[in-house]
Amino acid sequence: MSELLVSGGRVLRPDLTVERADVLVDQDSGDVAAVGEPGALSGDDELDASEGLVVPGLVNAHTHVAMTLLRGYADDKPLDAWLQEDIWPVEAELTPKDVRAGAELGLVEMIKSGTTALSDMYFHVDEIAGAVEQAGLRAVLGHTAVTVGKDEADAREDVQQSLDVAERLDGAADGRIRTTFQPHSLTTVGEELLREFVPAANDAGRPIHLHANETSDEVGPIVDEHGKRPLEYADDLGVLGPDTWIAHGVHVDEREIELLADTDTGVAHCPASNMKLASGMAPVQELLDAGVTVGLGTDGAASNNDLSMFDEMRDAAMIGKLAAEDASAMAAASVVEIATAGGAELLGFDSGRIEAGANADLAVVDLDQPHLTPAHDLVSHLVYAASGSDVRHTVCDGTVLMRDRDVKPFDEATVVERADEHATALVGRATE
Amino acid sequence: MSELLVSGGRVLRPDLTVERADVLVDQDSGDVAAVGEPGALSGDDELDASEGLVVPGLVNAHTHVAMTLLRGYADDKPLDAWLQEDIWPVEAELTPKDVRAGAELGLVEMIKSGTTALSDMYFHVDEIAGAVEQAGLRAVLGHTAVTVGKDEADAREDVQQSLDVAERLDGAADGRIRTTFQPHSLTTVGEELLREFVPAANDAGRPIHLHANETSDEVGPIVDEHGKRPLEYADDLGVLGPDTWIAHGVHVDEREIELLADTDTGVAHCPASNMKLASGMAPVQELLDAGVTVGLGTDGAASNNDLSMFDEMRDAAMIGKLAAEDASAMAAASVVEIATAGGAELLGFDSGRIEAGANADLAVVDLDQPHLTPAHDLVSHLVYAASGSDVRHTVCDGTVLMRDRDVKPFDEATVVERADEHATALVGRATE
Repeated sequence: MSELLVSGGRVLRPDLTVERADVLVDQDSGDVAAVGEPGALSGDDELDASEGLVVPGLVNAHTHVAMTLLRGYADDKPLDAWLQEDIWPVEAELTPKDVRAGAELGLVEMIKSGTTALSDMYFHVDEIAGAVEQAGLRAVLGHTAVTVGKDEADAREDVQQSLDVAERLDGAADGRIRTTFQPHSLTTVGEELLREFVPAANDAGRPIHLHANETSDEVGPIVDEHGKRPLEYADDLGVLGPDTWIAHGVHVDEREIELLADTDTGVAHCPASNMKLASGMAPVQELLDAGVTVGLGTDGAASNNDLSMFDEMRDAAMIGKLAAEDASAMAAASVVEIATAGGAELLGFDSGRIEAGANADLAVVDLDQPHLTPAHDLVSHLVYAASGSDVRHTVCDGTVLMRDRDVKPFDEATVVERADEHATALVGRATE
Repeated sequence: MSELLVSGGRVLRPDLTVERADVLVDQDSGDVAAVGEPGALSGDDELDASEGLVVPGLVNAHTHVAMTLLRGYADDKPLDAWLQEDIWPVEAELTPKDVRAGAELGLVEMIKSGTTALSDMYFHVDEIAGAVEQAGLRAVLGHTAVTVGKDEADAREDVQQSLDVAERLDGAADGRIRTTFQPHSLTTVGEELLREFVPAANDAGRPIHLHANETSDEVGPIVDEHGKRPLEYADDLGVLGPDTWIAHGVHVDEREIELLADTDTGVAHCPASNMKLASGMAPVQELLDAGVTVGLGTDGAASNNDLSMFDEMRDAAMIGKLAAEDASAMAAASVVEIATAGGAELLGFDSGRIEAGANADLAVVDLDQPHLTPAHDLVSHLVYAASGSDVRHTVCDGTVLMRDRDVKPFDEATVVERADEHATALVGRATE
């Protein structure tokens, strides 16, 4: 049995208190074996956490990781125009190799900023799964079905593919990969296919992940067509339930919040994307108060523009207070909670907390820095002052993925160079 | 004559285009001598900017730099309760040595995140001036007068001190330090003293900096007492004019925006603080559209909680879009503009742009990183994807203040340790 000792640091415990402790990792099982007093435990290998804070690996509950290729490609536009004029035309040109290059870039960025699990929505999913397997991260993947603008056969094939990919890839990478059935949204997949395939996904025990209530523009047409709010329509389709989480949930009314809570449906809150696309402010404190399980997601790099969950935590605190018009809303502890345990609950991983028996998914944040001084409140620092580059080590499933900023599963320079080449060629093809 | 060549990089020009160029710095005058084609210029010393973007040093148009000592001390509370219950009681215990320790910490943080000029409001200003002189940065300093709760003699003495300190320190540190007359705000300094001292400051040619229209709570009482909006009251007092800039300007109505534009009064926009204290969203795009000169400020570290202008740029873009309900508002170029040239105009420095004859105040951002790949749009990256830790070198007044992340004017570890000690002792005294 191989054991790794994360030693000399302070540890963020599940109740969000901080204590000086060492963390012993069973590298065979990939779980935390013990959290003990400093110096009381020993391992075969050691990870130096002195002057550091050991935190649960961050969980990115909604992203499109390969979209790193489009980082900064089209900014400062609203969702609908941005998708139709810029993003979709380029995405139509994406090859599997492009997706692989973009996914690797995004995963390196995640490892470097302490993220150990992600929920991804995209296509060419085998490439993303391959990149995740190499990265050593944990992920919930899926093929995202969009039926608008397709003929009946193509539309059906796309939705069927979402179900097939979910079945085929579930449990890949030694169980680190799980899957979801992914209708893109309630307006971009036709009602007939939703009525047919959502029950099929439910029958197959397949969790569901989709965009919902992201912009005010998408609410009106649903109300007009179906005579009910989007999440009432979703409930009617059988979409809501404890294995489902929606991305965004910005424009939800009180009844919909209640519906999310009653059906135990989760929400991946994406504050940066919602601000950058001017989609609006999700009532995230209200969601938490109603008992809804909330995770935190970066969305894709094209609407963020980075994949750092530290930026996202800061954004969640900031927009949460504005949305509630209350500076005490989305306090630092609540934000850390959704970025760790909340996200893990949505994705169905036994991570998001550091304690014996949980997945050994963790990051060590280097506290010995001017912008993290003084040490009045380390939970506050994680949310308001730290950035992704403050992460010194990253561990997932008991394996050290980054040690002293050195990323292990990939040659970082090669990944950066290849992604740059693919991005340049892609945009060239799309705009020629 | 000593010359420094910033070589091998790309340079952000005043029109916000990016070109491959070398920058020659005359270290005697502290100005940019020339911007030339790669390889065409030579200097006595060289600063390697290969794989980097040379940008104007960022201008922090409103801060309280010594408040780093209270970083994370009291979060998640609204402005009024936060000031009265937490901040002011601790600040009452601040010694000059505390202020020096806190200022040094904040200035090191600024150097490390590419800020080369700041506008500071605080007290024990000689200590802050000493720290700025040692740091090699450019600053506009002042003693902030608060008269609420003081007897007449103390109140008058405080306001007089603001005028005296401004006169005494103006031109210090070889001209790198300028000063302002600083009534804390329109509600925390009594009308009689404002009516006496504002004209005195104007007569002395002293610029004015104050908080105004930060929260909705402060607007009502002014309207009730004076029968006019805060900035109309300020105008009536003689506060507004081309040498004045207000901090915040969140709750300004259309007439007040017009008044700012007509009087050429500037605004230091502080998005992070406005979000964290739930003060509201400044109509920053509207201000720019009306022709108001806008700078960008972090406010103090206790309401932010860091002093990185990169975080602030991101926040400015994000909140600017939400406030305008328009994703095209506060586009990346506008944000870079207020963080550089806009701030320099407010503070009255010949910096904020890289061209021959301007102050040689600049930072080199390391582009060769996953989260800044691909290179579709480097201005976008500065705002949406870069963080303070991506700054590799910082130069102010022609002097290299940080080379390859090594801060030159201070021993960083000593500054961090001393600030930590002072912060701990301070809070101990205040809460015992």
